[in-house]
Amino acid sequence: MISKTPVPPYYAVIFTAIRTEKEEGYGNAVGEIAKLVKNQPGYLGHESVGDRFEITVSYWESLEHIKQWKLQTDHLLAQKKGRSTWYSDYKVRISKVERDYQMNN
Amino acid sequence: MISKTPVPPYYAVIFTAIRTEKEEGYGNAVGEIAKLVKNQPGYLGHESVGDRFEITVSYWESLEHIKQWKLQTDHLLAQKKGRSTWYSDYKVRISKVERDYQMNN
Repeated sequence: MISKTPVPPYYAVIFTAIRTEKEEGYGNAVGEIAKLVKNQPGYLGHESVGDRFEITVSYWESLEHIKQWKLQTDHLLAQKKGRSTWYSDYKVRISKVERDYQMNN
Repeated sequence: MISKTPVPPYYAVIFTAIRTEKEEGYGNAVGEIAKLVKNQPGYLGHESVGDRFEITVSYWESLEHIKQWKLQTDHLLAQKKGRSTWYSDYKVRISKVERDYQMNN
């Protein structure tokens, strides 16, 4: 569940969100988007957890790859539905991972 | 629950972890550390969610402030207990937030 990312530098998109109580296809969409993103160029992995409060961090090779994913058609539709229905608030932070370390290895 | 961070650049520490089943003071320690960090120089906010899989992102003015917090005495003790007892694995990523945007504001 912890993404196996390469040696830095690489990029992280930190998405933190507050859900509404509206389901309306949310579970399915999350599954679909999680499948799609794995084939997206420059994708390095993602970690996601939460319920009413959600944090999802995705990892990318470059800013250009992040931009391409933001504009991917199915993802655009999901973003629209996110704003209209699933989320009452969210924040997206684009960051450059400069250093990392972990407990095991 | 979404941190009100200043205009970038600032820094984010992305902590992703897998918990063991051992409680041993975990809940109390999380509460204590969350209180302590608020008085730490350079602290800008943090977001945390999860149970067996946990993501915590904390925000900081500078790399130097992150280093100071890593070496804070009570935090050092918590890190030690984390490695010995509470976590079976974790990863820490130090990143520079270059851009952010949000749904409401």
